[in-house]
Amino acid sequence: MDLFEKIRADRGPLGRHSDASEGYFMFPKLEGEIGPHMKFKGKDVLNWSLNNYLGLANHPEVRKADTEATQQYGLAYPMGARMMSGNSDLHEQLERELATFVGKESSYLLNFGYQGILSIIDAIVNRKDVIVYDAESHACIIDGVRLHMGKRFVYGHNDMESLEKQLQRATRLANEQGGGVLVITEGVFGMSGNQGNLKGVIELKKKYDFRLLVDDAHGFGTMGKTGAGTAEEQDCTEGVDLYFSTFAKSMASIGAFIAGDADVIKFLKYNMRSQIFAKSLPMPLVVGALKRLELLRTRPELKDNLWKIVNAMQGSLKANGFNIGTTNSPVTPVLLSGGVGEAAALSFDMRENYNIFLSVVIYPVVPKDVIMLRVIPTAAHTLADVERTIAAFSSIQEKLSSGYYRTNELAAQFQK
Amino acid sequence: MDLFEKIRADRGPLGRHSDASEGYFMFPKLEGEIGPHMKFKGKDVLNWSLNNYLGLANHPEVRKADTEATQQYGLAYPMGARMMSGNSDLHEQLERELATFVGKESSYLLNFGYQGILSIIDAIVNRKDVIVYDAESHACIIDGVRLHMGKRFVYGHNDMESLEKQLQRATRLANEQGGGVLVITEGVFGMSGNQGNLKGVIELKKKYDFRLLVDDAHGFGTMGKTGAGTAEEQDCTEGVDLYFSTFAKSMASIGAFIAGDADVIKFLKYNMRSQIFAKSLPMPLVVGALKRLELLRTRPELKDNLWKIVNAMQGSLKANGFNIGTTNSPVTPVLLSGGVGEAAALSFDMRENYNIFLSVVIYPVVPKDVIMLRVIPTAAHTLADVERTIAAFSSIQEKLSSGYYRTNELAAQFQK
Repeated sequence: MDLFEKIRADRGPLGRHSDASEGYFMFPKLEGEIGPHMKFKGKDVLNWSLNNYLGLANHPEVRKADTEATQQYGLAYPMGARMMSGNSDLHEQLERELATFVGKESSYLLNFGYQGILSIIDAIVNRKDVIVYDAESHACIIDGVRLHMGKRFVYGHNDMESLEKQLQRATRLANEQGGGVLVITEGVFGMSGNQGNLKGVIELKKKYDFRLLVDDAHGFGTMGKTGAGTAEEQDCTEGVDLYFSTFAKSMASIGAFIAGDADVIKFLKYNMRSQIFAKSLPMPLVVGALKRLELLRTRPELKDNLWKIVNAMQGSLKANGFNIGTTNSPVTPVLLSGGVGEAAALSFDMRENYNIFLSVVIYPVVPKDVIMLRVIPTAAHTLADVERTIAAFSSIQEKLSSGYYRTNELAAQFQK
Repeated sequence: MDLFEKIRADRGPLGRHSDASEGYFMFPKLEGEIGPHMKFKGKDVLNWSLNNYLGLANHPEVRKADTEATQQYGLAYPMGARMMSGNSDLHEQLERELATFVGKESSYLLNFGYQGILSIIDAIVNRKDVIVYDAESHACIIDGVRLHMGKRFVYGHNDMESLEKQLQRATRLANEQGGGVLVITEGVFGMSGNQGNLKGVIELKKKYDFRLLVDDAHGFGTMGKTGAGTAEEQDCTEGVDLYFSTFAKSMASIGAFIAGDADVIKFLKYNMRSQIFAKSLPMPLVVGALKRLELLRTRPELKDNLWKIVNAMQGSLKANGFNIGTTNSPVTPVLLSGGVGEAAALSFDMRENYNIFLSVVIYPVVPKDVIMLRVIPTAAHTLADVERTIAAFSSIQEKLSSGYYRTNELAAQFQK
């Protein structure tokens, strides 16, 4: 069989919809300066789709730091893998500052978050070890687990009973094999917005011997008293053995870091394949991250404003009868009832007639009859933005209930 | 067993040497503007360690483009995955230009090369398919193959007889399972410098049904009449079904692309996990890549000068009796005889007393008694740089033969 025949015959769960949705629902172009107000197809939209939690993407000091660092170093410097020729004093300074900020001995920069966590998992375990991970873990964790040659057990999302059962199985197996156990979960789950029950997981360390890796992509900068993340929020920093975050959310950049005990971080530094065999994080991104971290640390008003918007949005949604699930973070899902065709029509209506741009999440991420509007409040939004959005949602909810989006032409196109 | 105990007990093949080598042989800091002359520990060194083949890292037009793009867009824009909110006209323009340049219908940008090729392999095959790959494939290919749930067969490096044997096994198995066969090799192998025998592989398509993926990280920009890579060099562009290159070498940046038939590229765009679930390539890197590609296309003198230096270096090395293996690309390995301790002493001597900085490759990348000096000529080097280096190598070779580096204190430290 020809490999490409298969591809032509089945374009995959998302590719299947590409003819009708490319350029609009998928691969849309948001133009203009990053913020609550951007352009989509030439039109001003109120934008709730970016993880720019603290509004740093377009902060004047960030923009200045990014430009000056690029002017000074260019985007090429340093070249080569960190280990070979891609190291610098500033990479090390950023690592020290990140470690201090999240309350760990040491940290190491990663050239990209996705491949970074993949290689962390790969480096930490061998075939004798057992991985136990949350069922709703992000794709990058799943791909890391897929590289594992040994056993892995999945536990029900945030279900501590299920985790304990899997820990029993994992411990038995690890003991037989002379291996250890690695538990992986997230600080804040990016779809549901609920926090990983880190305290609950750590409580189980009293009964089981394991190490805990937490991906706090959505919690870093948004959660905890100082913004140090979900472990700070739950007051359990010590129990998190390896703390990971990307720079792609609050930090509004790319790259990532891993923090923990100095000897473990040093081990990772010398053993993560995607870091040993690929280029170092470019200098302007390092300098830019130093500036972002400084603002994150020294301007509590950014996080305060984020939460003002989050609380207003989530409070109003609930007051207006919307189901926002189990979120206890800035990520705000709005769960509506309807099919995939209705989701498309609704999203189209929202963009064209209400000038609101947000991600609409459908099956298979949520069940077949659920439409999830994914609202990401940021520090740069205003209470007026919230009000306008609540009014739009109410109007759209009414149309949805009345069956309006079932008769829509666009919906028909999607139901084909 | 505690996972971290294991780490403390065995720091890994590279980590084992960290006490003696960190900051010098591993994680050195090269400072100053990227080019043949940089600073190492405060001292001017002649640098042969960076894959800045065309000298673009520090080209004034590149530096200007990088700075202006960062000023215009900041390093944050666009945010989100390409599919969700990270798309732009310029991303698409770069894709069109790259496709045209390498002679393919279509191309797609990747946010980082390592995770990009990993997800290409992952998306293209399912458990019924069989992968056949070259034994010297780069770590990123190996990690992609490791994600594969089905069978994989490795063939001896560039050994067409071995490949044919594996193709027979792979074809039989794929036919039984209703799957296809994917062959993976590289355009230029980064250690030995020899080209993948693409023509030879493609010749086998007459007898076996498979698709060919080529990682041309070191060939893009350096090989072929127009710099379009190793497939152009070997006049077999059509036979390469999927052409991959990173921007981390000739393009002196980060990011990567995959090129091929439009429908296959479209499939990848909708099915590569590391691209669907991670942030898009930042705009300044896209604009910077457009500028680099323009220079690569319109300034043949860059590639001409690269090859002038390559030919001078490789010619002089051979004329002086050095063994440069089987290279037929700019990558220039110099193979000496000696142990790991001698390699360290030699490298130290070269940096401190000859002021030459290059990567010294030891076991397990090369056999235990081989020391490989890895010389990367670039367009920015001069013939005087070559001459000085040949003289240094001759002097060092003499010391090595005389046993000088065996009695060296540093060597002793490494032999402990």
